[in-house]
Amino acid sequence: MQRRELIVASLATAAQACVAPSRATGTTTMEEKRRAPTLFTAGTRGAWRIDHVIAVRGEALPAAAYLDVASRWEPEPGAAWALRGTVSSGRYTERREKAPLDAASPPLARSEASRACLIPLTKSPAWWALTQDERRAIFEERSRHLSDSMRFLPRVARRLYHSRDLGEPFDFVTWFEFAPEHEPAFDELLHMLRSREEWTFVDREVEVRLTRATG
Amino acid sequence: MQRRELIVASLATAAQACVAPSRATGTTTMEEKRRAPTLFTAGTRGAWRIDHVIAVRGEALPAAAYLDVASRWEPEPGAAWALRGTVSSGRYTERREKAPLDAASPPLARSEASRACLIPLTKSPAWWALTQDERRAIFEERSRHLSDSMRFLPRVARRLYHSRDLGEPFDFVTWFEFAPEHEPAFDELLHMLRSREEWTFVDREVEVRLTRATG
Repeated sequence: MQRRELIVASLATAAQACVAPSRATGTTTMEEKRRAPTLFTAGTRGAWRIDHVIAVRGEALPAAAYLDVASRWEPEPGAAWALRGTVSSGRYTERREKAPLDAASPPLARSEASRACLIPLTKSPAWWALTQDERRAIFEERSRHLSDSMRFLPRVARRLYHSRDLGEPFDFVTWFEFAPEHEPAFDELLHMLRSREEWTFVDREVEVRLTRATG
Repeated sequence: MQRRELIVASLATAAQACVAPSRATGTTTMEEKRRAPTLFTAGTRGAWRIDHVIAVRGEALPAAAYLDVASRWEPEPGAAWALRGTVSSGRYTERREKAPLDAASPPLARSEASRACLIPLTKSPAWWALTQDERRAIFEERSRHLSDSMRFLPRVARRLYHSRDLGEPFDFVTWFEFAPEHEPAFDELLHMLRSREEWTFVDREVEVRLTRATG
């Protein structure tokens, strides 16, 4: 775009702003465009019953009876705790890895997947001080996070939510769903992830075990 | 961590929640921990005077007199528009590139840097459908975003804010500061970035030129 065109566009913009009140007071418009994250709220209601809360590393989260999962910014008053996360772009997955992962990954909300696990975790300042190539090398080349998780698919459905850029107390919220008979496989997956170099960069991890609430 | 230890930790967690009211009603505590992003608010006040707003690609932003930059979530009532962004981890910079970049990059708020430019931009769904290795190849190997920007340092100070995970209308907000005599160099930097393959993935870009308000 040439400078002259830019100036013309600039004048057009100024004119448009003058004749369009909804744009001139555009805050509301901007707010409407703001997409809500996924909000995990622990309290007295929700589609998932909280079986137990385990402090795997660092400070735990308060106990609560139910977990509600919704797309919104703010929890209802009186929630025990609430965590936000956004499904974002993959930070480490490469093209040659994505196709087999996508093919093997089941959807969420399968009728037989009545068990779930919410795992909020925070990585260390040392992890975030690493550059992209250093984080990738630890994540996959040395910890085989993606490749060694393949054998647990499609038994375990997974979704990663990014929370760090939202200013949340945790960097990530990971969500897993599986049938009761596959809970041992899920336990094995967790044990594997926690035995690798990548996990030495975890400063805080909480494990929330859930069962779908009936009725 | 062994299963037995986990269960013990779980019981400790439950007990802790029972004896700690401020934790049992932990929402406020969680909210307090939520870090505010940088909020760029266009309106009737602020440290920067808005010289002009240019619609480089896609829909523009309404005209306004001043831009305020602060660390907060919500703008004051009556703002023309407000954009949020978070300084995040580098998505593409590799270790061998970071040292020279850090050494050449000047700080923000230099007394002589009385000119600034705010550039909110959104990349296309095609960009976000790419994997990490594909985005990196376009960003640096083919568009030389980092290496070709080096020669404009330290004349132009830069900071990148990530907005996409916050659900904002723009994916990024980029901020530049420079002395008036270096505005031609800044124009050259913009022209260079917009002439590369990476920029073909830009769906929307607005350029807001600013001068530090005196007094």
